[in-house]
Amino acid sequence: MKYITKETSKLIKESNLQIKNLGELKYPSPISFNLYEDDEKIGFFDSDDRVVSIIDTKNIIDDFEKVADLPSFEKAGPREHVYFKPGGTCCAIVTCGGLCPGINAVVRSLVMMNWHRYGNRKIYGIRYGYNGLSTSEKIEPIELNPDIVRDIGHEGGTFLGSSRGAPSATMMVDRLEELGVDVLYVIGGDGTQRGALAIIEEIEERGLKIGVVGIPKTIDNDIEVIDKSFGFESAFSKACEAIYSGFVEAKGAPNGIAIVKVMGRDSGFIAARATVATNNVNFCLVPEIDFDIEGRNGILVHIEERLKRRGSCVILVAEGAGQKFFENEENLDASGNKKLSDIGVFLKEKIDEHFKKRGIGTVIKYIDPSYIIRSCPPTPSDMYFCSQLAQMAVHAAMAGKSGMVVGLVHNKYVHIPMELATLQRKRINPHSQLWHSVLEATGQSIFMKNSCDVV
Amino acid sequence: MKYITKETSKLIKESNLQIKNLGELKYPSPISFNLYEDDEKIGFFDSDDRVVSIIDTKNIIDDFEKVADLPSFEKAGPREHVYFKPGGTCCAIVTCGGLCPGINAVVRSLVMMNWHRYGNRKIYGIRYGYNGLSTSEKIEPIELNPDIVRDIGHEGGTFLGSSRGAPSATMMVDRLEELGVDVLYVIGGDGTQRGALAIIEEIEERGLKIGVVGIPKTIDNDIEVIDKSFGFESAFSKACEAIYSGFVEAKGAPNGIAIVKVMGRDSGFIAARATVATNNVNFCLVPEIDFDIEGRNGILVHIEERLKRRGSCVILVAEGAGQKFFENEENLDASGNKKLSDIGVFLKEKIDEHFKKRGIGTVIKYIDPSYIIRSCPPTPSDMYFCSQLAQMAVHAAMAGKSGMVVGLVHNKYVHIPMELATLQRKRINPHSQLWHSVLEATGQSIFMKNSCDVV
Amino acid sequence: MKYITKETSKLIKESNLQIKNLGELKYPSPISFNLYEDDEKIGFFDSDDRVVSIIDTKNIIDDFEKVADLPSFEKAGPREHVYFKPGGTCCAIVTCGGLCPGINAVVRSLVMMNWHRYGNRKIYGIRYGYNGLSTSEKIEPIELNPDIVRDIGHEGGTFLGSSRGAPSATMMVDRLEELGVDVLYVIGGDGTQRGALAIIEEIEERGLKIGVVGIPKTIDNDIEVIDKSFGFESAFSKACEAIYSGFVEAKGAPNGIAIVKVMGRDSGFIAARATVATNNVNFCLVPEIDFDIEGRNGILVHIEERLKRRGSCVILVAEGAGQKFFENEENLDASGNKKLSDIGVFLKEKIDEHFKKRGIGTVIKYIDPSYIIRSCPPTPSDMYFCSQLAQMAVHAAMAGKSGMVVGLVHNKYVHIPMELATLQRKRINPHSQLWHSVLEATGQSIFMKNSCDVV
Amino acid sequence: MKYITKETSKLIKESNLQIKNLGELKYPSPISFNLYEDDEKIGFFDSDDRVVSIIDTKNIIDDFEKVADLPSFEKAGPREHVYFKPGGTCCAIVTCGGLCPGINAVVRSLVMMNWHRYGNRKIYGIRYGYNGLSTSEKIEPIELNPDIVRDIGHEGGTFLGSSRGAPSATMMVDRLEELGVDVLYVIGGDGTQRGALAIIEEIEERGLKIGVVGIPKTIDNDIEVIDKSFGFESAFSKACEAIYSGFVEAKGAPNGIAIVKVMGRDSGFIAARATVATNNVNFCLVPEIDFDIEGRNGILVHIEERLKRRGSCVILVAEGAGQKFFENEENLDASGNKKLSDIGVFLKEKIDEHFKKRGIGTVIKYIDPSYIIRSCPPTPSDMYFCSQLAQMAVHAAMAGKSGMVVGLVHNKYVHIPMELATLQRKRINPHSQLWHSVLEATGQSIFMKNSCDVV
Repeated sequence: MKYITKETSKLIKESNLQIKNLGELKYPSPISFNLYEDDEKIGFFDSDDRVVSIIDTKNIIDDFEKVADLPSFEKAGPREHVYFKPGGTCCAIVTCGGLCPGINAVVRSLVMMNWHRYGNRKIYGIRYGYNGLSTSEKIEPIELNPDIVRDIGHEGGTFLGSSRGAPSATMMVDRLEELGVDVLYVIGGDGTQRGALAIIEEIEERGLKIGVVGIPKTIDNDIEVIDKSFGFESAFSKACEAIYSGFVEAKGAPNGIAIVKVMGRDSGFIAARATVATNNVNFCLVPEIDFDIEGRNGILVHIEERLKRRGSCVILVAEGAGQKFFENEENLDASGNKKLSDIGVFLKEKIDEHFKKRGIGTVIKYIDPSYIIRSCPPTPSDMYFCSQLAQMAVHAAMAGKSGMVVGLVHNKYVHIPMELATLQRKRINPHSQLWHSVLEATGQSIFMKNSCDVV
Repeated sequence: MKYITKETSKLIKESNLQIKNLGELKYPSPISFNLYEDDEKIGFFDSDDRVVSIIDTKNIIDDFEKVADLPSFEKAGPREHVYFKPGGTCCAIVTCGGLCPGINAVVRSLVMMNWHRYGNRKIYGIRYGYNGLSTSEKIEPIELNPDIVRDIGHEGGTFLGSSRGAPSATMMVDRLEELGVDVLYVIGGDGTQRGALAIIEEIEERGLKIGVVGIPKTIDNDIEVIDKSFGFESAFSKACEAIYSGFVEAKGAPNGIAIVKVMGRDSGFIAARATVATNNVNFCLVPEIDFDIEGRNGILVHIEERLKRRGSCVILVAEGAGQKFFENEENLDASGNKKLSDIGVFLKEKIDEHFKKRGIGTVIKYIDPSYIIRSCPPTPSDMYFCSQLAQMAVHAAMAGKSGMVVGLVHNKYVHIPMELATLQRKRINPHSQLWHSVLEATGQSIFMKNSCDVV
Repeated sequence: MKYITKETSKLIKESNLQIKNLGELKYPSPISFNLYEDDEKIGFFDSDDRVVSIIDTKNIIDDFEKVADLPSFEKAGPREHVYFKPGGTCCAIVTCGGLCPGINAVVRSLVMMNWHRYGNRKIYGIRYGYNGLSTSEKIEPIELNPDIVRDIGHEGGTFLGSSRGAPSATMMVDRLEELGVDVLYVIGGDGTQRGALAIIEEIEERGLKIGVVGIPKTIDNDIEVIDKSFGFESAFSKACEAIYSGFVEAKGAPNGIAIVKVMGRDSGFIAARATVATNNVNFCLVPEIDFDIEGRNGILVHIEERLKRRGSCVILVAEGAGQKFFENEENLDASGNKKLSDIGVFLKEKIDEHFKKRGIGTVIKYIDPSYIIRSCPPTPSDMYFCSQLAQMAVHAAMAGKSGMVVGLVHNKYVHIPMELATLQRKRINPHSQLWHSVLEATGQSIFMKNSCDVV
Repeated sequence: MKYITKETSKLIKESNLQIKNLGELKYPSPISFNLYEDDEKIGFFDSDDRVVSIIDTKNIIDDFEKVADLPSFEKAGPREHVYFKPGGTCCAIVTCGGLCPGINAVVRSLVMMNWHRYGNRKIYGIRYGYNGLSTSEKIEPIELNPDIVRDIGHEGGTFLGSSRGAPSATMMVDRLEELGVDVLYVIGGDGTQRGALAIIEEIEERGLKIGVVGIPKTIDNDIEVIDKSFGFESAFSKACEAIYSGFVEAKGAPNGIAIVKVMGRDSGFIAARATVATNNVNFCLVPEIDFDIEGRNGILVHIEERLKRRGSCVILVAEGAGQKFFENEENLDASGNKKLSDIGVFLKEKIDEHFKKRGIGTVIKYIDPSYIIRSCPPTPSDMYFCSQLAQMAVHAAMAGKSGMVVGLVHNKYVHIPMELATLQRKRINPHSQLWHSVLEATGQSIFMKNSCDVV
């Protein structure tokens, strides 16, 4: 199997160049690691510390002869010298878009790291996303310090508030200048990171030395290059509880059908992984795999067959699945995301209609736990992960990096160019282990499409 | 404060007479309690073991001179002799109506008690509620034994399946005769218990000796005479999680408003208690307390005022609140319950409309966790309670009691006449400690009605 | 069955007289309940609002002819007029003894109730129990307000700190005078309440008007007259988790034996209830039921028999069980409680020795989750309960009551004389439903004593 | 920073050769992945699918010129043809050593995968570890099928039972032959995997074609080459709860000190990660970092200083920390692991002694949650991970691989030679991000050794 081509490598290499270095690393880092080896500075990384970004041999062995040619990412971590003055760097933190478990843990660690390790005392918490950087109706930022953030790490939601949409980049950079911000930490999804790129452009046009570093937030875990995004594990764990409810409801009624809708606009990772973890789902529907509702091989036929055999049925559907059924209705929300039509409600109606027409009594329960999932507290595992991402972001920012996000690639923390991170979404490959496991766990037909009905 | 009058006492006394005693207690109980006192039979109850049913002195002191005249309930517990033959009594268990945490724990204990303590080996699990007693489309019952039920106690839902509605009493008694059932255990709400009364009537008309004993199920905790119903604590505990989500969502957005809808058709106990336990609710709306939406003292004004002061707002609404707004739409579901119009959705629309009209940006999140609440596993506390209720029900049934439910009154397990248990619903008294605590926890106005706007 | 005699009634009646009333209720209560009935003051209680304290008819019918003669407790709740000046009453809160889930929820509600409903602004949080009232090494109390306590309710432990032991009553009253305290709220066990009685005595000798109101704390749920103590449900729920661990460990090894030790100095309620709730315990050992270890009918024989049949075994032991084995070793801890010798470790050694001697391989796991249980956060149900107790305590204190604790009796909140509350411990009755349920759940022999070996 | 040298690469390359291939892949795989691309077989891996095993460029760039020379691991996943006959392969599953969350989930998936995807119907569950393969006292294996394992995945412990120690390889291979086993799945730690190597040796000497595939189990997450081991996340998450208890206990007493001991024989990953996740630990002690107890820069001095500043202190200690204090006492347990002396108890005594000597009152709580942690149910995340590992193991086994374990390397599932997996333990690098985060989270001194007291 071979997925990645020379083009991708080129893309990685080129986009790497888009990470900005604001200037010379003139200040010695206040962080000290000299544990035992007293002669050598240990624990610091430099720009030669890189991680190979494509590691499946089949994808590289023909295209690259030399190891030195392999595309790679810069490793994240502390630098021996930094660009911004420790103790004198003014930071701002902004959280944008929908809730995701762990945002507060990231904010907490950004503050702790800046305060305790780099000595920075001026840390603004921007209220309610980019709108908190508006100059028209000024919302005062919160001045953050260890006391304020100490206990927020295990709470769901965002302490700072969030919102969708943004003022113009001009306005936002005006506000950053006004506040005297040196580094802006941006926690948000790809819409948000694209907003950050616009801010960076404006910063550069004005010749300012403001760094912008992102911590990518996507509860759907759908960023192409990175292993996983923070909050994803918490979210899919919480989704498992809702699936249990659906399972219990379906079992508890004659011909009981439970439909559980979870997040997943473009990628069904939450749905797929929760399916495998719980083993309680009979049909898992995701945006990546096409399906029909009616017809000889549509899902209704499969549900009916399942009811006949087992008397109950649990359907897990990602919100972005089956959007082809609503093709003429699309429009955008304030973050520029396509608004989705509700596949859960649609399915419920179709199923209800079908069985009524067929004279088969069913009891249908529709469960939409979205807000309960996205607002849940982070798991300990996510709390740990969030703290690591935040620490890496601060190291990068202090070293004068800009236009990048931190992320885990091949289980290593690296700097990823913002553009690459927002380029395209990671999606479930139907040939992958993950999807096979879904098929295994559900026993659902590989195809639920009329054009594939000879299965 | 005086609530209960002579009439109530009369009612209790009269309804007590409606508990049937199928006949003479001819078999010695197989249960032995002679721990140390070897001469006396210890641990058994007889019909003189009763619990005073009205214990507020103000309610009894003027009406009853003599202690002997006080209304009382028969105590639940083992009898020294029983009516049905231990080891030879055929039982059936049926679970009806909506899910409620703990049903499986009740079923488990009914089986264990019958099997291990009374030696009964024929225990039918009727599938899918009263419909499993239909003679037209016969659904085979499950033969229950300790192995089958061992691990179900901590699971949500009902292992046997449930449904709403019922075949005719004639049909059901035909089926009970067919199966040779001596005792029917009925787990269900007041519609179900009324169904049981019809079954009993049919049994008596046929001169049969079949006992029918109920374990009252109401997730709303709204049975007048009893302290609490099983599953209620689990349900309100789970509701607290949904309220946390609402709280987090509301805090996380500018002018964030979360509406959380919980169970509570006629009584708002889940809403009220969750409000007090979480301290995260700003408006608690229950069926018992009238409120207006629009107008000078309607809830919209109060919400707006709250947003102005605090920037976010959490509304917890019981499903039966504000039904006056849908007065012309009512009809009945299969269990004979009034179908409710969705106050949650209605509120969401009204609030949205109001703030749009007023030009105030808000972010409204509507959370309906109903299925997640009612299907949740029982808490350890409820598991304990369920096992006690079940054991009491078996003791009562073996002693030939019929037409009664078991319940906790003044923290004692007693036999309650089915009619009394279904007579009227317990409702929140606005002068009660509970409602005062709600007002305390929310800080909401005592009145949110236009007719009471001078507050 | 008849437990309570004329003597008990006399005791209740007499001890009721020991509740102090500091003086005339001269201030109108700031609490308003006029919801609808505008002419009558609704929602207030007076001294004629009482709850019958013995309600099993067999226990009263012969001894009391007249209803008016029945022993009863004063109902808790708001009074129309109060003794202390609303808005001008200085309070102090002290938490003593071992941790128990819900202490913080009680503290929170005491503060909220005093602040918001009675307008009192001077509320001291005494640090580290009675030792915080020492005059020798003064520890400054924390000045409490709603902001400080807002988020502590769902946390385990005690925000104020606790300790065992106490300075002299003289010293403590000196300190109360120094601080100008009008009302002292005492959260603690019976040692603590006895300390409170000493304080009251000193107060009276000095002719002071300081009220002392208790909220009884006992994780063991062993106060004779009350239905349940706060924290007990949380504790026993948490204990269930440890039992699950023991169950898993025992099952996972050949002849696996798990010994789980839980709280229960004099009463085994946590052990008993957790046994019934989990159904995973094979031997439940409590202080109330004597047992032998060795000998023909000792527990070792029973364990061996169980291993032979089932290959694994879970033993749940309350810390106070089997103290006869350490009879010559006893002494007291700083709170005046008898120090217990470790029955868990003792059992482990005895079992190990026994099977080694018998040449039978076993794997023994000893689990002592005590601190994990007692420090756990309160369940929602306990959070609700704590808030109710605290509110009742404040109503009582403002009405000038002293020398009493608040408690739930027959599911009603009442005032209980401190002396009565500390008089004797509630213990498991071997003839009770609870213990029968334990025997049912474990299948253990009723007797595990050599003197009773013909069973 | 450069850790890995040419020697490591050589080691990886050489050990790769030790993975056995039992023979020609003569049977077509029954697994079908032709989703859309009908001409090409999609979704299968072959021996050219490999993953680069060293990906930090600094570690490879000088040593390897050509990409083709890079050391790599074979990718795990389905093969287009398999060695064993689908539908006719007899399997056995054995679980050895201490409990670890997720073992049952692995067993479940092994059974499901063999049964549903490869059609194998003869699957033995060996009881109680390698001892279940003894020929002297034969314990009958359980015949496993989907019904038996369906609901075990979310349970803690091991359904099959486990034990330490093993019969001779001769005996075990005798038993495997007797049972007709083709593939043995071994779930266990490095002692267990070394046992598996002995079995393989014996198999080869006899010229048998039995495959042995491992799923490495180490709750300590200390296998050198792999990203993480199953159960680790569940374990460290559960450990966080015990730390919370310690935190609450320490806060609740004057000069409260809590000592929490967690797993970690040779590596402190659970301790370190839980420290970072909770932010409630003040001193984290692990086997990798030396420390002194007494003396000018020993830990007692640091604790005292902390108490002076903050009045409470939480110490988290991995069981293998500070073993130098017991150097003369070591011996081995039945699995051949060094028995550890109890550093937790030792610390408690030392601290107690120190403060008594210094006349400083403290309250010390010692919490040892080990069994509660290791027996806990797996998190959803671990349940997912376990199912993936199991599926990979079955693919490998059916393809005739032997002498290897499955594992996640650089976030890819690969085949790792058993010898490499057991060669050495992964340990916390004091210069690593993880340890820096620990220092950050605790604020503890980098050095707590007298030889490093100038800090």
